[in-house]
Amino acid sequence: MISVIGYYTTRFGELWEKSLFELVKKAITGVLTDTKVDIDQVDAIFFGNMLGGVLENNLHSGAKIAEIVGKNIPVFRVESACASGGVAFHLATQYIKSGAAKNVLVVGAEKMTDFSPEQVVATLAAAASGEEQEAGLTFPGLYALIANYYLKKYNYTEEHLAHVSVKNHYHGSLNDKAQFKREITVKDVLKSAYVATPLKVLDSSPISDGASALLITNDQKFIKKALHSVSVLSCEVATDTISLKHRKNLATFEATVIAAKKAFKRAKVKRTDISVAEVHDCFSIAELVALEDLGFYKKGTAGDAYTKEPPMVGTNSKLVVNTSGGLKAAGHPVGATGVKQIGEIFLQLTGQATNRQVKNAKFGLAHNVGGSGGTAVVTILGS
Amino acid sequence: MISVIGYYTTRFGELWEKSLFELVKKAITGVLTDTKVDIDQVDAIFFGNMLGGVLENNLHSGAKIAEIVGKNIPVFRVESACASGGVAFHLATQYIKSGAAKNVLVVGAEKMTDFSPEQVVATLAAAASGEEQEAGLTFPGLYALIANYYLKKYNYTEEHLAHVSVKNHYHGSLNDKAQFKREITVKDVLKSAYVATPLKVLDSSPISDGASALLITNDQKFIKKALHSVSVLSCEVATDTISLKHRKNLATFEATVIAAKKAFKRAKVKRTDISVAEVHDCFSIAELVALEDLGFYKKGTAGDAYTKEPPMVGTNSKLVVNTSGGLKAAGHPVGATGVKQIGEIFLQLTGQATNRQVKNAKFGLAHNVGGSGGTAVVTILGS
Repeated sequence: MISVIGYYTTRFGELWEKSLFELVKKAITGVLTDTKVDIDQVDAIFFGNMLGGVLENNLHSGAKIAEIVGKNIPVFRVESACASGGVAFHLATQYIKSGAAKNVLVVGAEKMTDFSPEQVVATLAAAASGEEQEAGLTFPGLYALIANYYLKKYNYTEEHLAHVSVKNHYHGSLNDKAQFKREITVKDVLKSAYVATPLKVLDSSPISDGASALLITNDQKFIKKALHSVSVLSCEVATDTISLKHRKNLATFEATVIAAKKAFKRAKVKRTDISVAEVHDCFSIAELVALEDLGFYKKGTAGDAYTKEPPMVGTNSKLVVNTSGGLKAAGHPVGATGVKQIGEIFLQLTGQATNRQVKNAKFGLAHNVGGSGGTAVVTILGS
Repeated sequence: MISVIGYYTTRFGELWEKSLFELVKKAITGVLTDTKVDIDQVDAIFFGNMLGGVLENNLHSGAKIAEIVGKNIPVFRVESACASGGVAFHLATQYIKSGAAKNVLVVGAEKMTDFSPEQVVATLAAAASGEEQEAGLTFPGLYALIANYYLKKYNYTEEHLAHVSVKNHYHGSLNDKAQFKREITVKDVLKSAYVATPLKVLDSSPISDGASALLITNDQKFIKKALHSVSVLSCEVATDTISLKHRKNLATFEATVIAAKKAFKRAKVKRTDISVAEVHDCFSIAELVALEDLGFYKKGTAGDAYTKEPPMVGTNSKLVVNTSGGLKAAGHPVGATGVKQIGEIFLQLTGQATNRQVKNAKFGLAHNVGGSGGTAVVTILGS
């Protein structure tokens, strides 16, 4: 069994004073210091990063990280758009299972705020199909198509979506590493400017810098002496068509459905066993669709549930979602997101989540999406 | 034990009529048709590609390939500069060993000739360190530093380098899929224009389009019914500092030395067992350094050996190098190169190398490098 034995994340936000690799170094140093593990004991590194090539002509980051850590170990950069961090984690766990390594660092990072928002939005569209790019569709546009479809299909309003952001901003206010630490109201969301109807600024995750790192191992010596550890019960990846036009139903992400089914089966836990989940809320609509696809709510019911009993810290909800603040409030440095999600579940299951701690959490789930659902990664952890 | 059971490559060259994903589709269809394996029997795909993001804002290619094949299977894009194909193969073999998959496609592709050479050279510099990029160093410049150091250290001349290209062009003339099928002479090389002294146009691999695909499996049913198969005895990855300034000796790639040592140890074969090798000759100097680092020649002796008895098809040399034509003559569509190298060894060990066939080849080696030696992958195959 593989365990997560350490997690460190930089603050997410506009970190103009640090370069991509300075953030990576900070995250790696942080997790090694916290766990008292030496870099000599690390066998390989998996690195999730989406935009380094496009934005700053920065590729071959595996070797660049090898130079930073001063070791000749294999360092692999993987890219699956916004799912780069989750995919890096998936491949790292399989790499350990293969016998190629025991102690592996999984690092995710992105540097986005040095560039104009227009430039970042244009490059993020690289995750969409050529056709969608040529049609001028950006990610807010793609998710707006999904939102319109969902709202109409289930007779919901923009107010239902607003509750997602309100909850996530409340959680962000409890997380020192979050980009946004202020609470917002449904009214704030509804009066914010439209980005792509029906999605508004406060339905949308921000552009962010940040780096996160996890240390994982199957070495019993390391697990036993670790201050904190959680078991990786499963981590599954599935894909779907890249273009929305090839999908039968825009209100569901097939990749999430498939990855979740496989992950629950392998982990041998039930939906009701999960107390905390980090799901991919790049836009408010994405959180509702995700929770239904993951099987926590029946299709079309998440909107109602959120107005009645949002899955928020401090409520009676048996499931609490996005305690980190989610992509919306914690920030969304693309490559780091999937790593941070698993890190947040690690903090929750080991009682380290301070004032946003969910009581008696035994099992948690992280859900990371690439593009508009082309890739999904579902990871289940157990304490 | 994992076996390669099929290989298909498009022609390498200026393929203006095909897009990146049309090339990918052609390679995948080719290998599935040749092996009579259905896409439904494929569990995962690993995709090596370097420049799709930078040159054509084309990321998240895993999901794009999932759409092409019409399956929800995991598709992973990995990027390690010019070693992307080799690294994809390495991770694919470990993925099988982990138990996550049995039948895996390893695909590499690059689309470069639609862009200006200046643009391609600038984006290729993404594989170098930020410092080297800022200093204006391009890849010809970096390898020129290495060539100058090597020539001076071992008292060689530019003529010694020229023999590498002459041999590889001869091999290219025997390969239908090669970009350059004409023979050249030492005189041709020496009178070609300097790119970065002492390296000339005919010391340098070209800018190319192309896609290559391998089908690998550990399923005995598939191996038994395969028309052709070779065993993957080992595939190892190592890294080095990204910047040349941090290296003690420019005439050696530490990443190659480490990966080769591990690969030979794991494969349990000797250097003298290897009859055919594909090595990373992005520039002529790289082939000489590679063959010494791999342990086929003592340090500083490859230059002499090449003038006396080049490792060429049709000679008495016990080792034949770059029968495909190498990067120099077969072409260098970056992401495809590492996959094609392993494919060429597969062809040689299964007697399918037509008029460039090396007789009685039982063991072969492929060597793929990222950047100026920041990453190296060494793969040993046995028939």
